[in-house]
Amino acid sequence: MRLRLLTLVTTAFVATLAHADEGMWQPQQMGQLSKQLKARGLKMDPADLTDLTRQPLNAVISLGGCTASFVSPQGLVVTNHHCGYGAIQYNSTPERDLLTNGFVAKSFAEELPAEPNARIYVTEAITDVTAKVNDGLSKGMDGKARFDAIDKHSKALVAECEKDGGYRCEVYNFNGGLQFSLIRQMEIKDVRLVYAPPEAIGKFGGDVDNFEWPRHTGDWSFLRAYVGKDGKPAAFSKDNVPYQPKSWLKVASDGVKAGDYVMVTGYPGSTSRYRLADEVQNAIDWQYPTTVKYLADYLAILDNAGKGNKAVELKYASTVAGLNNAMKLYQGQLDGFAQMHDPVGMKRGQETALKNWLVKRGAVGAEQTQAITQLESELAATRTTRERDMWFNTSVGGGLTGTAIRLYRNAIEHAKPDAERESGFQDRDAPRLEGGLRALDKRYDAKVDQSLMALRLKRYAALPVAQRVPELDAWLGLKAGDNAVADLDGKLAALYAGSELGSVDARLKWLKADRAAIEASKDPALQLAVKMMPALMRSELESKARSGRVSALRPQYMQAMIDFNAAQGLPVYPDANSSLRITYGSVRGYSPKDGEQMTPFTTLAGITAKTTGVDPFITPKSEQDAIAAKAGAQYRMAATADAPGDVPVNFLSDVDTTGGNSGSPTLNAKGELVGLLFDGNYESLSADWIFNPDLTRSIHVDFRYTRWVMDEVDHAERLLTEMGLPHD
Amino acid sequence: MRLRLLTLVTTAFVATLAHADEGMWQPQQMGQLSKQLKARGLKMDPADLTDLTRQPLNAVISLGGCTASFVSPQGLVVTNHHCGYGAIQYNSTPERDLLTNGFVAKSFAEELPAEPNARIYVTEAITDVTAKVNDGLSKGMDGKARFDAIDKHSKALVAECEKDGGYRCEVYNFNGGLQFSLIRQMEIKDVRLVYAPPEAIGKFGGDVDNFEWPRHTGDWSFLRAYVGKDGKPAAFSKDNVPYQPKSWLKVASDGVKAGDYVMVTGYPGSTSRYRLADEVQNAIDWQYPTTVKYLADYLAILDNAGKGNKAVELKYASTVAGLNNAMKLYQGQLDGFAQMHDPVGMKRGQETALKNWLVKRGAVGAEQTQAITQLESELAATRTTRERDMWFNTSVGGGLTGTAIRLYRNAIEHAKPDAERESGFQDRDAPRLEGGLRALDKRYDAKVDQSLMALRLKRYAALPVAQRVPELDAWLGLKAGDNAVADLDGKLAALYAGSELGSVDARLKWLKADRAAIEASKDPALQLAVKMMPALMRSELESKARSGRVSALRPQYMQAMIDFNAAQGLPVYPDANSSLRITYGSVRGYSPKDGEQMTPFTTLAGITAKTTGVDPFITPKSEQDAIAAKAGAQYRMAATADAPGDVPVNFLSDVDTTGGNSGSPTLNAKGELVGLLFDGNYESLSADWIFNPDLTRSIHVDFRYTRWVMDEVDHAERLLTEMGLPHD
Repeated sequence: MRLRLLTLVTTAFVATLAHADEGMWQPQQMGQLSKQLKARGLKMDPADLTDLTRQPLNAVISLGGCTASFVSPQGLVVTNHHCGYGAIQYNSTPERDLLTNGFVAKSFAEELPAEPNARIYVTEAITDVTAKVNDGLSKGMDGKARFDAIDKHSKALVAECEKDGGYRCEVYNFNGGLQFSLIRQMEIKDVRLVYAPPEAIGKFGGDVDNFEWPRHTGDWSFLRAYVGKDGKPAAFSKDNVPYQPKSWLKVASDGVKAGDYVMVTGYPGSTSRYRLADEVQNAIDWQYPTTVKYLADYLAILDNAGKGNKAVELKYASTVAGLNNAMKLYQGQLDGFAQMHDPVGMKRGQETALKNWLVKRGAVGAEQTQAITQLESELAATRTTRERDMWFNTSVGGGLTGTAIRLYRNAIEHAKPDAERESGFQDRDAPRLEGGLRALDKRYDAKVDQSLMALRLKRYAALPVAQRVPELDAWLGLKAGDNAVADLDGKLAALYAGSELGSVDARLKWLKADRAAIEASKDPALQLAVKMMPALMRSELESKARSGRVSALRPQYMQAMIDFNAAQGLPVYPDANSSLRITYGSVRGYSPKDGEQMTPFTTLAGITAKTTGVDPFITPKSEQDAIAAKAGAQYRMAATADAPGDVPVNFLSDVDTTGGNSGSPTLNAKGELVGLLFDGNYESLSADWIFNPDLTRSIHVDFRYTRWVMDEVDHAERLLTEMGLPHD
Repeated sequence: MRLRLLTLVTTAFVATLAHADEGMWQPQQMGQLSKQLKARGLKMDPADLTDLTRQPLNAVISLGGCTASFVSPQGLVVTNHHCGYGAIQYNSTPERDLLTNGFVAKSFAEELPAEPNARIYVTEAITDVTAKVNDGLSKGMDGKARFDAIDKHSKALVAECEKDGGYRCEVYNFNGGLQFSLIRQMEIKDVRLVYAPPEAIGKFGGDVDNFEWPRHTGDWSFLRAYVGKDGKPAAFSKDNVPYQPKSWLKVASDGVKAGDYVMVTGYPGSTSRYRLADEVQNAIDWQYPTTVKYLADYLAILDNAGKGNKAVELKYASTVAGLNNAMKLYQGQLDGFAQMHDPVGMKRGQETALKNWLVKRGAVGAEQTQAITQLESELAATRTTRERDMWFNTSVGGGLTGTAIRLYRNAIEHAKPDAERESGFQDRDAPRLEGGLRALDKRYDAKVDQSLMALRLKRYAALPVAQRVPELDAWLGLKAGDNAVADLDGKLAALYAGSELGSVDARLKWLKADRAAIEASKDPALQLAVKMMPALMRSELESKARSGRVSALRPQYMQAMIDFNAAQGLPVYPDANSSLRITYGSVRGYSPKDGEQMTPFTTLAGITAKTTGVDPFITPKSEQDAIAAKAGAQYRMAATADAPGDVPVNFLSDVDTTGGNSGSPTLNAKGELVGLLFDGNYESLSADWIFNPDLTRSIHVDFRYTRWVMDEVDHAERLLTEMGLPHD
């Protein structure tokens, strides 16, 4: 594997120094990148990409965890099938199975309300609030005091921003706290399902193809934003009208070809590109392997419990899917690291280069160096309790016990004025908290939860006593020399048998109870929560104090990085944080190994070749017939020497994306819609830490496939017309 | 998988009608192909490819099972590492391990004699003997009489041809007996090992990469032909001198690139391209699955026996390797068939097209149609005893029992004049027979052989009584209703304990014994042989009679095929039969699936990437160092947009090859050496039956890699100079 490494050593160095292929840029940074954008082939003014109030940016919206975009003046929204999944599932019944059969609304009237929590967020303003958040902070400030000050300023900014209603506001932290932005998003609450292809198209390849190339997934769905007659966000009502966005994306009349410029605008969730070598090492040596092992054990319990018990199997089906996805994600990152030559050493080499540069920088450099050293110490200190933090938190954080703790904490927080409450327990969080307590029934089985609790507590009990928590030891009857709990099963059986929190009514009752009532309760789960709370508060205090100290250090490290790169004329993009970003690149395949090339397009022919008739490789007969009939010649790519002209299905590009980008519009050099981002290749998983431009690829639905299916298979001609597109 | 099918249906039809990419052509056919050869890029006179007495054909030689070529005026020979393996292994000792370390003779004196049976065959004449072989045959002739006549004429031709000594002659059957050629080859008996790279280069990737692409194997070795001072073949002697061939291949100064013309001349062993649909069906439905299952059971026994018994493991190591190779080969063919849409139906469609054409052909057509129908009946009759033939023959054909039967048959045949003896028992066969009896010790363990015999006999005993053989039933004590042998283990234990044939001295003693002596022997294995002989002779008679009848029919079918194709202006090549052939095509990758492309070259970078340090992915330090030092820039390919210039290692082409072609020279458009054929991709395995030009690829060593290793790693500069090649 040495070649890969060599390549990587070289390119990753460049990468951290803002390689042209890499970067999830803030809109306001696009002006700095004019030269690179033009070199890649951008055919519009880069300044247009900095303006939130103009196309294309004001057409790009968030679904909270996914991205979407407006594609018509009537508030028509396109996103991934897996992002619209909730809306499709919510409207599916055994009699009218929209997941399996797909759904096409033939008129506005037929459009179906999505699940109650579905939201569309339209970013309207991004305001730099760094000075306000940092107001009154001083250099030698105590960590906890610093944390509290930042928290208080942020909450005040959010409360002020949200006070008129109809908006969701949040303070986003960029570059580890070097900069804070207040982002104001209009919150559209009436979201309706307009069109979804059958799951056999929208989820073709399923988990087998997840994170894989070649890919043939029709991962799109269409929603519509509705508002009150006054044009303002409103809860669902028959009288609501389609929202009329300020602008919407135009669908490109031609598709892209290999080498063409593409860009993706969206809301990437989180990356770790600027972590220190120590943090990379911790992820590789401990965090990820431990997590993978835990997820495997977790899945084994669920698998075992589901055997011969359909009810349990169904309750945990989505948990199992999520755990499998997470396991592939973590394992993929470990596999990616394993392919690199000494990623930790490489990161360390970069830090050394930075520190060497800082030496030449006099007093400023000395201060930054000192901050980096202190940051390393804080991180080292955090690692000393990593086993405790993992197993204590998972033990008391999930299922029955986690519910009890949330209820008790809610009661504690409600004794305070709203502005002073912990995040998650403010009035603005109440609907989400209640929704979670209600929904627990659908994914909870007491017996299974007890087995999971036993798994976690066994791990906890096996820790050395210095990594344990006295309150939990006392509850378990664990003494200093013990490494297992006597009669754990008996203890847990009593806990689960005695608690009423398995019932939704009981949970909602206790959600309204005050602190004294919960402390007086005989419910063993609530009693456990009361006993654990001092330990949790202690740990929270520790963690806030450290977080406060780190918040004074990491910005200095990031400033040093930015200065170092600026000295070489290179801009730095911040790690992803769910805020709106732009990434650009080209349609491009990759070579997974010498002698093998992944080509950038898949085609209808590949769907036929993959179709076995066995899930997840089933193709609807209507699609098979359309392929056989060679329908829709106008959607085909031009034939080349190597390949006949066929309708493209998915394509690869080297743009830089991660989770949260799902559903993002893929735009061509003129800012027109050519596809939807929906996944990355397996090799891209470790790119959350270290971006390798040779191997990291994003996977897009080609919009020509979307149009072909809409025109030739699903007959969604109404929507093609609405988007101004011709059809057969 | 439907796309593949569609493609295949189309192309395979074309294929049988001599698609330009397909064909193992007889040298004399090359003149007919001028147009196709020129279209592909041939830059020499096609007539030069028809002449056995001129370059390049007279430089292409056979090693018996492998191909090789002369590359210097001093009889220097290049072939594959796996073809020179016997010579390397024969000269290896624990103290001087040439397999592991490689070997470079620094002078003629250092060149090492190969194993005693090593031979180099130089084809000197190919004479059409169809009339002589068919002399006196008549239309209504009895099958056995027909077989005997052909056999007698062939033996007489061979005897006449070989009578001067120094030659090996054989009558080759083309197109199922439509044409016979007498091929006369000079038999060089003093073969020496000149140069072999370390196994870590010559067998890099081992069984894991066998039949796979991407590939990085340095599969070459160099031998030299020695003759007596009179220039005539002679057994090894210190006084022998290097053979001076009439011509030798010139190594191309430049290598090939994607799309370039290439051709391969060599001795492909066997293909089944013109088998009837019924035969394809039999292979798919019964023969191959049954064989794969048998090989798997066989391997399980050997695997089990080798556990904790190093001596047994070593004795059966090469058998295990061979069985694994065979299993991958058969399974690969089944996998290939499974990827095709109804290969039997496709073949049947071709037969229907042929028969429809014959209908329009009057009397000639009617006669040919009748012959095809009769051929189908004969084949159907053969299939009625396929279970018996398989399990009786494997039961009595292998190991101890097979040895006893060979000894007894030898005694029977030796009572006849040489010319009348069965093939395999003539005087010309004696050295091979004796060699086999001697070598048995190295790959025989009585306990293991007994387990294998038990496996076969259990299968035999489970057959319906109609598929059984009375003589074997009697020996086993099997009655009509039985489907298992009572105390089989006891019977076999007595057989193995009582026989002395496990000893080489005993075997050689019985090799000299006459029929009466063997019939009087108390050795239970010889007694079993005597009891089985009537059944074997009966089956042989049956088979010869059928073979004789088929030999009157298959030529008519092939003539019909040839006429049918000729009517469309298309020549037909005969199935491979170990005779000299030429195949041409281009350097070309392939797409194993939509979105994925195998590129036609691998490079040194890929060796580094594959190297794990664990067998079979070890790379010698000397090679690692040469790669790291970027040694030998003159051997690199030009850089392209997609790939930096690196030394090519292996390449793909669409030439048509099979087993026996191993070691064949790969020539460019001017007939110069650019590589060595050494394997095919996995998708090529089923091409022995049905050639799919989209997926069938041959794998070649790029001679630039050979030169790079010789120059920069193994320091075989003496040989580079001898070939007229510059070096560092």
